[in-house]
Amino acid sequence: MKTYKALEQTFCRIAAVNGALAMLGWDQSAMMPDGGARARAEQMATLSVVRHDWLTDPALGERIARAETEAGKLSDWQQANLREMQRQWSHATALTPALVDARSRATAACEMVWRKARADSDFKAFAKAFRPVLDLTREVAAAKADAFGLSPYDALLDEYEPGGRAARIDKLFAELGGFLPGFIDKAMAKQAKAPAILPLDGPFATETQRAVGLRFMKALGFDFNHGRLDVSLHPFTGGVPDDVRLTTRYEEADFTKALMGVLHETGHALYELGLPKAWRDQPVGEARGMALHESQSLLVEMQVCRGDEFLGWAAPILRKAFGGSGPAWEEPNLRRVYTRVRPGLIRVDADEVTYPAHVILRYRLEQALLAGDLAIADLPDAWNDGMSSLLGVEVPDDRHGCLQDIHWPAGSIGYFPTYTLGAMAAAQLFAAAKAQDAAILPGIGKGDFRPLLRWLRSNVHGRGSLLTTDELLQAATGKPLGAAAFKAHLKARYLS
Amino acid sequence: MKTYKALEQTFCRIAAVNGALAMLGWDQSAMMPDGGARARAEQMATLSVVRHDWLTDPALGERIARAETEAGKLSDWQQANLREMQRQWSHATALTPALVDARSRATAACEMVWRKARADSDFKAFAKAFRPVLDLTREVAAAKADAFGLSPYDALLDEYEPGGRAARIDKLFAELGGFLPGFIDKAMAKQAKAPAILPLDGPFATETQRAVGLRFMKALGFDFNHGRLDVSLHPFTGGVPDDVRLTTRYEEADFTKALMGVLHETGHALYELGLPKAWRDQPVGEARGMALHESQSLLVEMQVCRGDEFLGWAAPILRKAFGGSGPAWEEPNLRRVYTRVRPGLIRVDADEVTYPAHVILRYRLEQALLAGDLAIADLPDAWNDGMSSLLGVEVPDDRHGCLQDIHWPAGSIGYFPTYTLGAMAAAQLFAAAKAQDAAILPGIGKGDFRPLLRWLRSNVHGRGSLLTTDELLQAATGKPLGAAAFKAHLKARYLS
Repeated sequence: MKTYKALEQTFCRIAAVNGALAMLGWDQSAMMPDGGARARAEQMATLSVVRHDWLTDPALGERIARAETEAGKLSDWQQANLREMQRQWSHATALTPALVDARSRATAACEMVWRKARADSDFKAFAKAFRPVLDLTREVAAAKADAFGLSPYDALLDEYEPGGRAARIDKLFAELGGFLPGFIDKAMAKQAKAPAILPLDGPFATETQRAVGLRFMKALGFDFNHGRLDVSLHPFTGGVPDDVRLTTRYEEADFTKALMGVLHETGHALYELGLPKAWRDQPVGEARGMALHESQSLLVEMQVCRGDEFLGWAAPILRKAFGGSGPAWEEPNLRRVYTRVRPGLIRVDADEVTYPAHVILRYRLEQALLAGDLAIADLPDAWNDGMSSLLGVEVPDDRHGCLQDIHWPAGSIGYFPTYTLGAMAAAQLFAAAKAQDAAILPGIGKGDFRPLLRWLRSNVHGRGSLLTTDELLQAATGKPLGAAAFKAHLKARYLS
Repeated sequence: MKTYKALEQTFCRIAAVNGALAMLGWDQSAMMPDGGARARAEQMATLSVVRHDWLTDPALGERIARAETEAGKLSDWQQANLREMQRQWSHATALTPALVDARSRATAACEMVWRKARADSDFKAFAKAFRPVLDLTREVAAAKADAFGLSPYDALLDEYEPGGRAARIDKLFAELGGFLPGFIDKAMAKQAKAPAILPLDGPFATETQRAVGLRFMKALGFDFNHGRLDVSLHPFTGGVPDDVRLTTRYEEADFTKALMGVLHETGHALYELGLPKAWRDQPVGEARGMALHESQSLLVEMQVCRGDEFLGWAAPILRKAFGGSGPAWEEPNLRRVYTRVRPGLIRVDADEVTYPAHVILRYRLEQALLAGDLAIADLPDAWNDGMSSLLGVEVPDDRHGCLQDIHWPAGSIGYFPTYTLGAMAAAQLFAAAKAQDAAILPGIGKGDFRPLLRWLRSNVHGRGSLLTTDELLQAATGKPLGAAAFKAHLKARYLS
């Protein structure tokens, strides 16, 4: 027990450094003037080294091993905490400091090149900087594969989605990949027969958009004693569970994007805010993984806030706040705005029906890149072919094609599938929630989100990393992760 | 040289942790919701321990000693850097970790009690929590006195004002203490014969106040690529030299305080922004001490911005921004507003003429407290007697008396005198600057602060901690720190 308790203390210190890094990262995106970049990079690099040194201290590994021999005396939560400690330790120690350092430098350099290359649609410039990133990511994958007895891709995936495996994803994506093309056609055919979307005419003052966002956040259960809403170029949810920092970006001509962006981030934030308080600053108190995290943002954004009940409640609030009137501002038109299906080039602008195609393409390509089956030089053609066959769109240039996302330049391979795993989990969780508590849906229609939040708190948020993603879904919905609920959701929303 | 270079690397890492702490501290005051307090305290405590461990590493002491034997090969700046490293190391190692920890806990507890005790004017409650703070501060003073061969008070003073000594301050304060009472009477007599102050009627929208503040900051040379202006309960200047974070507090009924507050903090900020870029992240690149830091804020606020030239330039800007008109908004009335002399109870609200009396009282009392010549229980009477004899005001309760400041509850003894040392240095520097560059004063009258900033950059800011305070003043003004320029300034402004 003493050994375990000492581990808790070490991880509490690690959590404090993680928290400091999270706050500095938020500030960098939301507050920092450009001229602060050099000093901030030094601060964050120094703290990252401190964290890495603590996490790879050989004494820590020995202590974890010793605690494991005494695990029988620990509670379920303590055992899960120890398992997560081991997980973090093994991910950190699988890599040599030299490899960590080399990858961090290569990705930093590649990100810089990518920013310009994307703007210029200059794939050649990008490819040159991406070469070392891909090589080093392969080295990372090989080292972790070796340490964990996994395939290289699974070893990377495991960073973002603990326990996630490509074999499982292949099946789920095959099911979705078979379903979607025909479904998209049907949904678009139905949409074509519906009344045309009426424009919502702006401009919409930023301050008003912000006020509406804050009002909805409050209604959804966001606790402003433990967080803030600010502005950044790329919206995200950062900070720590006691102090969650959301960001969004406003366009005066169109309030609909920023508003739904705020609601999406609020889903992430509610997860963080609802993590088990008794396990703050411990690995088991952290969110389970990226699939569940995305499930919480998509549950709020896609399942709840683009649904009829929410939009019925929100419509008069939006009319009043923005001074709108007429049929454009009634629920049916807002619903058409918020459920428009339109195959397009850009993932972050995609609707929920076409979004999985963007992910499936990236998932296939990143596996091929990692395995060496796809040469970097052949990426644009492979991308453009995929977009054409999966979504029927022609890519005019790499800026609107394979250069659009930051993930690969940043060395993140294995992240993309979690978006669609999250979409499936969101549908599955929301279906179970509605089935288990009949007050949830009528509550949403009246702007009372307490029944929903109560269900999420006890079935998802409050469980931290106690269970695996599948165990959690099994406990909450009676099934492991599947595509059925997502398909049923799409049919109900877009075809009925 | 290798030894010295290794030291630079260590102090670069220490600077990164210092910078992280500074940003987290700024966020705590300017951005953080209350509910973030626990996590933030953990983050800051953890980073403080990291810094303390690095700074008290025995290997560091040995390396400094070794580098000192080779100091002949170092440049002036490197030698000064080594001296400042030694200074930081000796301050850190003079105290045992147990003493640092005990003091930090006692002051944290006392600050909490003080907040309530001040609001309730409850000296007894405060006294109980202050007892351990004073005892531990005495222990700190004794340990540092022992390590540095200084008196206990000087050992504390040296933290805030390197090289500052009470014997020197006694003389300066005696000169000022002899001059001020008669001067205050004369200034007030003259003021009584001047036209009455015309009220500036509000309300003044916060956004307008902020816009005016930003305009003046920009004019003074603040670089918004390297800093921001935000809001906090207690205005301060934080952040790092590459990214200086100013705060202020707005009152809608009265713009004059927030505006002068912004200008005061801008003085601090210009010092930080102007520190030598070649020595960023090194001890010699830091500001020299609190006396010079305060000299820079007071030079901007008191010497420049309450002067005729500045107010003549600012008056039409203020009129236009706030929609004011009539004689209240002309320069003569603004000057009377900004140079009103009025003995009062509260230090932070005091004018520049009566301010030193507040400081002299605190300076005497904190020496007596530290020496044990004044019992905590006798502090209120001693305070009230002092206010009566120094300023002729009667203290109605301890909230407006000895409980008003956070310094003592926070364990800061030896800080107060730097305010008035700063006022004297400000007068001396500004007099020298005007004498050396005839373009400075006319520039200010036209809103062109470049000549002033140029002088400050080369004579103060850019010197970092290369020189001692006195060496810097000698080089810049031809004299060590004295009271003469301050007295001359007061006479010129208030009697002529």
